[in-house]
Amino acid sequence: MAKAAKPSPFAPARLPDMPPLAGVRFAACEAGIRYAGRTDLMLAVLDAGTAVAGVLTRSKTCSAPVLWCRESLKGGRARALVVNSGNANAFTGKKGHEATRMTAEAAARAVGCAPEEVFVSSTGVIGEPLEAGKFTHLLDGLAKAAKADAFEAAARAIMTTDTYPKLATRSAEIGGVPVVLNGFCKGAGMIAPDMATMLAYVFTDAAVAPAALQALLSRHVETTFNCMTVDGDTSTSDTCLLFATGAAAARGQAPIADAADARLAGFSAALHDLMRDLAIQVAKDGEGASKFVTIEIAGAESWAAARRIALACANSPILKAAIFGEDPNWGRVVMAIGKSGEAADRDRLSIWFGPHIVARNGERAAEYEERTAAEYMKGREIVIRADVGVGSASATVWTCDLTHDYLSINADYRS
Amino acid sequence: MAKAAKPSPFAPARLPDMPPLAGVRFAACEAGIRYAGRTDLMLAVLDAGTAVAGVLTRSKTCSAPVLWCRESLKGGRARALVVNSGNANAFTGKKGHEATRMTAEAAARAVGCAPEEVFVSSTGVIGEPLEAGKFTHLLDGLAKAAKADAFEAAARAIMTTDTYPKLATRSAEIGGVPVVLNGFCKGAGMIAPDMATMLAYVFTDAAVAPAALQALLSRHVETTFNCMTVDGDTSTSDTCLLFATGAAAARGQAPIADAADARLAGFSAALHDLMRDLAIQVAKDGEGASKFVTIEIAGAESWAAARRIALACANSPILKAAIFGEDPNWGRVVMAIGKSGEAADRDRLSIWFGPHIVARNGERAAEYEERTAAEYMKGREIVIRADVGVGSASATVWTCDLTHDYLSINADYRS
Repeated sequence: MAKAAKPSPFAPARLPDMPPLAGVRFAACEAGIRYAGRTDLMLAVLDAGTAVAGVLTRSKTCSAPVLWCRESLKGGRARALVVNSGNANAFTGKKGHEATRMTAEAAARAVGCAPEEVFVSSTGVIGEPLEAGKFTHLLDGLAKAAKADAFEAAARAIMTTDTYPKLATRSAEIGGVPVVLNGFCKGAGMIAPDMATMLAYVFTDAAVAPAALQALLSRHVETTFNCMTVDGDTSTSDTCLLFATGAAAARGQAPIADAADARLAGFSAALHDLMRDLAIQVAKDGEGASKFVTIEIAGAESWAAARRIALACANSPILKAAIFGEDPNWGRVVMAIGKSGEAADRDRLSIWFGPHIVARNGERAAEYEERTAAEYMKGREIVIRADVGVGSASATVWTCDLTHDYLSINADYRS
Repeated sequence: MAKAAKPSPFAPARLPDMPPLAGVRFAACEAGIRYAGRTDLMLAVLDAGTAVAGVLTRSKTCSAPVLWCRESLKGGRARALVVNSGNANAFTGKKGHEATRMTAEAAARAVGCAPEEVFVSSTGVIGEPLEAGKFTHLLDGLAKAAKADAFEAAARAIMTTDTYPKLATRSAEIGGVPVVLNGFCKGAGMIAPDMATMLAYVFTDAAVAPAALQALLSRHVETTFNCMTVDGDTSTSDTCLLFATGAAAARGQAPIADAADARLAGFSAALHDLMRDLAIQVAKDGEGASKFVTIEIAGAESWAAARRIALACANSPILKAAIFGEDPNWGRVVMAIGKSGEAADRDRLSIWFGPHIVARNGERAAEYEERTAAEYMKGREIVIRADVGVGSASATVWTCDLTHDYLSINADYRS
């Protein structure tokens, strides 16, 4: 059983108020899958006609629920989402697939839909068989108890080593009709999304066709969840799903079929902003995090190159250890940029720690003062910027430091 | 200044006896570049006619000495090697190049050769200007004091956070004539050679032409230094040089020009074995290491794929933290294999911790006992094997665990 980690210093003082969102209801309960004294099973019930899009981990050893979702996404329609925490149902062979199928079938019966319209996620320990029979009988009661305003309860039920639930909300207009986007996610360790973070779910009442949703989601994942890392370790279970209940159509929103439709501009921006918000919340709750770190790389050959350089910095254990130690060790930034494999001009490279220039054109800046930089490093939010001097593309990546608490959490996660 | 780290549990009880090797002499002294009370400057004097080969870091932000060596290697001949510790002379702009050139010129005068026949390495802090003027006057005295049997003194002078000097020796025959290979290296953190580890030097009295030496060195680097990682961080300074004094020619060894010459078979095997020995010594002295870890991947599509999978495991912070915690958390092996990007068949994947099978054909093995595996994890040397089930290629990688001591060392390296 995971020890209760001390709360992240970035735990929000209060959670966002999640406005009502027509077409989706939630319930959660204590199924006793692994944890005691907390909820670990969540059901979302979606109105008929809900469109769905998703982005899933590229891991070659992905979990049974990820394979299930990949199949279900082909239909583009969703009526239920079931998530359990405590067990990832990953690397569990045929029994794992069977557990996912049983879960989907039980949810389908409870909600009154086809199993293919049920989406399933599991998160927790890898390799332990998941006994679905221990909780499928609970889904009927959850379906009956599901309420529209239970976003927080849903977000809490899917947590593992997270120290706070991660919620975000945005609003937008589509053709003048207001729509709501509410999302939540979990994730704290084993975070280097090769697609999205762990588990993230976004709900909207907008009426948008599955293909258009998919195009928006795939695009925004690249600059949000895929620009965030805690430890460079990609989960077997990464899942990001976007559900559009279409309830806004009843208020006059003309359904949108094409992602390129200009009427989606505001919705797309709000979706991006919400996903970015959730991604940053994951980095801030990175296991053991004491500092939130933003890496901004400019002057790269392409956005992809800039992101790769930024991730090389964000995943460098020795740089993250220096940040933990409040040491403005910019030589390690030089090292990480150098190891990324992307083009960088050593003799035009410039580096800033927050507002303080550290290096200019390939050597220490004349005005650099170690004392000033050391003072800056004592802050809780650290921004490291670099211009690699070969082009005009830039990218931003979010991460946290590498701390003794990260090690302690992960040295006895299962003990 | 780096704190004195406690010695690695793998520090050898005694150092190897290095046999005499004709054609090379060493001296070291305290130049006071950064450290107090220890040597930090080393000179190797090589007899005329010494052939040289080298493999250097692929870092895009490599140090001034790396660029110098890259140029000097074109000549294929060496008369001197100068190494300082305490300052990497990396990211030091034109002044950095100037410091390297001054060093090479001073050594050339002391030894009586051209500056292009001098090889230079620097290791230590990145980004601080290296004041070559503070030590170039010492090279003349070092050249006069240089002795044939001073391998250990040389190996000690190049250490940074290493807790022991790393030496190895082998012998071979070329056309029936015995030859000696003696090597030493340094490296403990910022170790994920994208070529070689930090600094490694191998000396032999064999008479082998530069092109043949280069072919052997490049080949063996791939399966030795490039199969070893401490923290996934590639240094700006990685340098591996192989010097052949040719002194064995005086004892009747016919000089060899071609790496494919069958008479080099034993020499090549001895060189590989020595380089592997040094690579393992670096992993065992990995900053803060409490366990030495061997990752063996079989059943891959190619050797390169197997190595990439093995490195994904060896560089996974969350798996390394589990090993530190003596937790047989094989789910993290599944995760790391999955994230590598190389082909793996989830449903044919098998995993062993030492002699104990953990998973077979994509799920936990029936005979797996957590208690037995947990007992195995208490050992100091851990072997993790996996068969990824898609081919017949295999590779082995060496690493260490990720510990609180790694963090402590790197959180205040410079303070």
